[in-house]
Amino acid sequence: MNKVNLAEKLAMIGGHWTPRIVGELNGQHVNLVKFQGEFVWHDHGDEDELFLVLKGGFRMEFRDRSVELTVGAFLIVPKGVEHRPVAIEEVEVMRFEPAAIQYIGEVDSPMTVRNWERI
Amino acid sequence: MNKVNLAEKLAMIGGHWTPRIVGELNGQHVNLVKFQGEFVWHDHGDEDELFLVLKGGFRMEFRDRSVELTVGAFLIVPKGVEHRPVAIEEVEVMRFEPAAIQYIGEVDSPMTVRNWERI
Repeated sequence: MNKVNLAEKLAMIGGHWTPRIVGELNGQHVNLVKFQGEFVWHDHGDEDELFLVLKGGFRMEFRDRSVELTVGAFLIVPKGVEHRPVAIEEVEVMRFEPAAIQYIGEVDSPMTVRNWERI
Repeated sequence: MNKVNLAEKLAMIGGHWTPRIVGELNGQHVNLVKFQGEFVWHDHGDEDELFLVLKGGFRMEFRDRSVELTVGAFLIVPKGVEHRPVAIEEVEVMRFEPAAIQYIGEVDSPMTVRNWERI
């Protein structure tokens, strides 16, 4: 039951595309991630994912459209829907998702990080 | 898969202590609430709750201590732990919790709102 200051946690995060877990509740994780550039196309068979922008902005691409997100906006990507985050400049994002999720679903990529650090 | 702008949703919320649901994923709800004053002591037998401060600040009281929260900080209250939010001035909070939760557990109070509107 300790409070978590998002700015303090974000200051501890170096690099891109590697979420850090900052909270857990009801089998879900809260994690923070910084990224820039294009991720890989992927989906999650059993998990919905929420992306809340804390700093900057990014575009979530779907196969048939895309959604632009800026600070203070969130998007829920339902299970099974292919998506790809793209950020022109570095963005800071808070995510909610099941603790059991695989970062990029079944896709294998150098961007895959299987074990996320808790900070 | 529509984005949700927190400021737009918050502008739609009048009154205090009545959460509005703004998202659902993995059996969990994202809701927004404004409040001021003292709530009632309560706990939730089966649900952990996350409180993220979007504007202002408040104090989460526990039976043995309290935690002060300001903008950009969150706190997870584990299931079964009695708590009471207290805000000197109006605060805006985003919460993340199981969809099945009862707002104030088993406690009966005029502050109870059983059916939350989606906005």
